[in-house]
Amino acid sequence: MKILETRMAPNPRRVRIFLAEKGIEVPTEELDLMKGELKSDSFTKLNKLQKVPVLLLDDGTPICETIAICRYFEELHPEPALFGKGALGKATVEMWQRRMELGLMAAVTSAFRHLHPAMANHEVPQVAAWGEANKPRALDMLRILDEQLSSNRFVAGDTYSVADITALVTMDFMKPARVQRPEGLVNVERWYKEVAARPSAKA
Amino acid sequence: MKILETRMAPNPRRVRIFLAEKGIEVPTEELDLMKGELKSDSFTKLNKLQKVPVLLLDDGTPICETIAICRYFEELHPEPALFGKGALGKATVEMWQRRMELGLMAAVTSAFRHLHPAMANHEVPQVAAWGEANKPRALDMLRILDEQLSSNRFVAGDTYSVADITALVTMDFMKPARVQRPEGLVNVERWYKEVAARPSAKA
Repeated sequence: MKILETRMAPNPRRVRIFLAEKGIEVPTEELDLMKGELKSDSFTKLNKLQKVPVLLLDDGTPICETIAICRYFEELHPEPALFGKGALGKATVEMWQRRMELGLMAAVTSAFRHLHPAMANHEVPQVAAWGEANKPRALDMLRILDEQLSSNRFVAGDTYSVADITALVTMDFMKPARVQRPEGLVNVERWYKEVAARPSAKA
Repeated sequence: MKILETRMAPNPRRVRIFLAEKGIEVPTEELDLMKGELKSDSFTKLNKLQKVPVLLLDDGTPICETIAICRYFEELHPEPALFGKGALGKATVEMWQRRMELGLMAAVTSAFRHLHPAMANHEVPQVAAWGEANKPRALDMLRILDEQLSSNRFVAGDTYSVADITALVTMDFMKPARVQRPEGLVNVERWYKEVAARPSAKA
């Protein structure tokens, strides 16, 4: 079993943090985005979408999509539960993981992909107006997160979850994406300090 | 318990089909998007994102996000399993549900939201170039789906799953979204006939 990734990209980091929180070690293999290794024939056979991370099982089966990889390990190693427990707990984590991913991470990565010169050959066509439109969306979601964190220790409630992982990785990706973090979100700042200090954040 | 929805929108239909496949009946309440009922104070309290569907539990707890609502019911009524069984089965459904949602549904709804005149007041700013850029993306994902369906009865394998629901609802939404379905995808056509004929598709 191994994970194919590009170390600098935010999605592979989500998987690394998830595995660190579970205490699971899986070997990784680095692919170089800039050298076109995600467009090679051999990698395209594993993931037609030409995206990392991909978990390659020992029998050669590829599992693509960050959250699908995380869920695979959640099923095999249920503790600590990072997707929640019970019907309401799992639904709540799913809700907040989706809000962080579709509302925050997608906005920040869209700003990056459509505005950053380094992405010109990877995001075709780059639509600058769409990149700009995503910046205020990211900030709107951070304000919603700040309100959620005013009465919750973690993104989805009392317990650290995959929703925290998505939010943390996105916060750290705002700098290369050139999306300015708003000031004065005291609950987000308090939460960020705590989750960024966990050993898993170095993964 | 009730579900707040706008009947014409694709996401509430995903929940209705999911519940029909499970044999679960939940009362629904219609909100009128065009009359601004999704922007009302009372609805915004339930979902700050101002989006449907929202599942409102008897104690007043709101569960937002289509897939979070579906997962809530999957936990309470595990059969038939629509999110897969076992670690590999669940990961495979998650992978294909995400591909159908992030690759196909998001592309079709982006074309709709950024190009359709009726959305001018709801998608601000409308970025026409981004709407156009999404049309070939939807078709690329349909070609990947066609290849998947050349050796699988359903989107995620041998068994009907939430990935089929997302794909079916998106196929039907291509017409109002004015994204032309490509011809000659014989496996997609064979699959579409089968899933559209299930009683749940009328939900």
